Amino acid sequence: MADVNTFNGLTKGKPIRCKAAIAREAGQPLLIEEVIVAPPKAHEVRIKILCTSLCYSDITFWKLKDPPGCFPRILGHEAVGIVESVGEEVNEVEAGDFVIPVFIADCGECKDCKSSESNLCSKFPFTVSPWMPREESSRFTDLKGETLFHFLFVSSFSQYTVVDIAHLTKLDHSIPPNRACLLSCGVSTGIGAAWRAANVQPGSSVAIFGLGAIGLAVAEGARLCGATKIIGVDVNPEKIVIGKKFGVTDFINPNSCEDKSVSQVINEMTNGGADYCFECVGMASLVQEAYASCRKGWGKTIMLGVDRPDSQLSLNSVDVLCSGKTLVGSLFGGLKAKSDIPILAKRYMDKEVRLDDFVTHEMKFDEINKAFKLLLDGNCLRCVMWMD
Amino acid sequence: MADVNTFNGLTKGKPIRCKAAIAREAGQPLLIEEVIVAPPKAHEVRIKILCTSLCYSDITFWKLKDPPGCFPRILGHEAVGIVESVGEEVNEVEAGDFVIPVFIADCGECKDCKSSESNLCSKFPFTVSPWMPREESSRFTDLKGETLFHFLFVSSFSQYTVVDIAHLTKLDHSIPPNRACLLSCGVSTGIGAAWRAANVQPGSSVAIFGLGAIGLAVAEGARLCGATKIIGVDVNPEKIVIGKKFGVTDFINPNSCEDKSVSQVINEMTNGGADYCFECVGMASLVQEAYASCRKGWGKTIMLGVDRPDSQLSLNSVDVLCSGKTLVGSLFGGLKAKSDIPILAKRYMDKEVRLDDFVTHEMKFDEINKAFKLLLDGNCLRCVMWMD
Repeated sequence: MADVNTFNGLTKGKPIRCKAAIAREAGQPLLIEEVIVAPPKAHEVRIKILCTSLCYSDITFWKLKDPPGCFPRILGHEAVGIVESVGEEVNEVEAGDFVIPVFIADCGECKDCKSSESNLCSKFPFTVSPWMPREESSRFTDLKGETLFHFLFVSSFSQYTVVDIAHLTKLDHSIPPNRACLLSCGVSTGIGAAWRAANVQPGSSVAIFGLGAIGLAVAEGARLCGATKIIGVDVNPEKIVIGKKFGVTDFINPNSCEDKSVSQVINEMTNGGADYCFECVGMASLVQEAYASCRKGWGKTIMLGVDRPDSQLSLNSVDVLCSGKTLVGSLFGGLKAKSDIPILAKRYMDKEVRLDDFVTHEMKFDEINKAFKLLLDGNCLRCVMWMD
Repeated sequence: MADVNTFNGLTKGKPIRCKAAIAREAGQPLLIEEVIVAPPKAHEVRIKILCTSLCYSDITFWKLKDPPGCFPRILGHEAVGIVESVGEEVNEVEAGDFVIPVFIADCGECKDCKSSESNLCSKFPFTVSPWMPREESSRFTDLKGETLFHFLFVSSFSQYTVVDIAHLTKLDHSIPPNRACLLSCGVSTGIGAAWRAANVQPGSSVAIFGLGAIGLAVAEGARLCGATKIIGVDVNPEKIVIGKKFGVTDFINPNSCEDKSVSQVINEMTNGGADYCFECVGMASLVQEAYASCRKGWGKTIMLGVDRPDSQLSLNSVDVLCSGKTLVGSLFGGLKAKSDIPILAKRYMDKEVRLDDFVTHEMKFDEINKAFKLLLDGNCLRCVMWMD
């Protein structure tokens, strides 16, 4: 194992042998094995992961037998780490830097990255490719020499991983790693959806469908933006307590609405519909309900939840035409990774953004299958795993 | 007939007998008959129509056998007129004022009318009611005493009509009536969609699906907003010539795209999609094509076309989520009738907004069935009819 040599440059340019959790079969427990992590090529950075957390997308792709599911794969995409070495052409970070890998790229050069209106890099478009972003190759092999696939350009379920510089954000060391890793995907997505994608205005009303980590992060973002009515919708009545911590002011359990639809209840509570509705579950039918729950004239419905690839969202044409409402999709909450994540990190350190309450569990990386079970059972917002 | 007494106050408070074109049966020629127009009640205004033009929605409801189609009815909703008399509580206009009736209300008092973000009055929501907006009653009867239904709170196919003050916009007399009437619905809707609903930015690219009067008005609006690439999509190749007049810079005939879809062609022409796409036909499938034609990251698709009431708009959930695109519906192009129509009228008088080229035909009101045929045959943008 190469850990002791990480920061004295002795590993630079050489393969690193370390532990990783490999998904070898769909839905089967991950196997902790030793793997070989190749040195970074040009524009790439090798990172020693400090903490990784588990996001529901890891589970989605772990379950997926057919493409874009593929095996053997190193999953994981919410993490924080320290730069071990950099490849050629990398000037933005150096060994020892504290960095967050992010599944969407921010090349800084394309029309999108230069525009304040888009966070969808054109040079490295979002895909669920099993490779590195610049070429169809992997930096991982197992001890038998078999290639291990990447996941979302991050693959953080490994002590070391290689990430393209376009997918890395440098942070100040001050933020603890077991909080910083949350900014790598889910929590940023939720806060960003309220802040960037919806641009929630002070005094406004918000409805959030689904109070998992992302939905609660939307509540946190809406609270930070000054929303005064934040309605949480969830079938689990236990979400009332946790919801309140994140600013949820009103709670609707769809199973307790009697003969009314959730949208009817929200329309009554808000005197005509919420100014912003967020779908955080990933069900087309809930997007329709969210759309029906938002205010005519100016209401915005923001889609965050990931549905099946073939799922169709159906809206009545005349409703769309006559309502003046807006439907917006957003990846990563519309955040621009390199500029917005440091802002969130600073706001956490300034005690404005609440991250601590998202971490319901912490454990050692070796216990990763326990983390999967916790999230699957719905008993967990975020489980942070510490690497050795 | 009461015309000679209109402006000397002799008709005030009394029923007026005048000519109207009555739709007595779905799809059958209108009948020019004498009708009785009751005096305006509180908040109402009786108007002598000067000019009315024919909009496709008149045809849609004229054809409609089942509700919200209803007969006998006085259709027509694009018009301009002179106030003959006002009911109680009307202070905004007085006899002799030049006014435009509009199908959407602007009460000036509700949350929507006070907000800059909505043009959908809450006090008088848009419906296709057969009555006046404040009560289920009509101001029209035929000579046998039978009630004649209203249409879109305007019913301009009559020498006199009664309109609620919330549906009236006062204009300066300087604009000719055969141009002013265009601002009452279709042309305003198109220009407004570019100006208000989409907020087209200088230097941007625009694609317009359907180059009827509304689509051409979108082009006009986009040109006024400074769009530099305005792509018109229409199956009728003759639209190239008229399109150019209104600022269309590029033309796509879907029948000449060979093996490519229209969205593929637009994506190629704009290097990734148009910044704004407008659906002006009223076909859910075209909204999908418009959505596919707009730029990831910031593209907006604006729905203007009126489809069948049961028509469903279907979008792929993952496409919506991952594209960062926006879908917006708008009625009357997002314009606020009382404040925005006078701006457009002034811009016409200042030779900025082009209205003349929309008027392809002018005729006497008696020839209204000829106007229907012209629009049905696609040989007409706007046919303006002069009242006697």
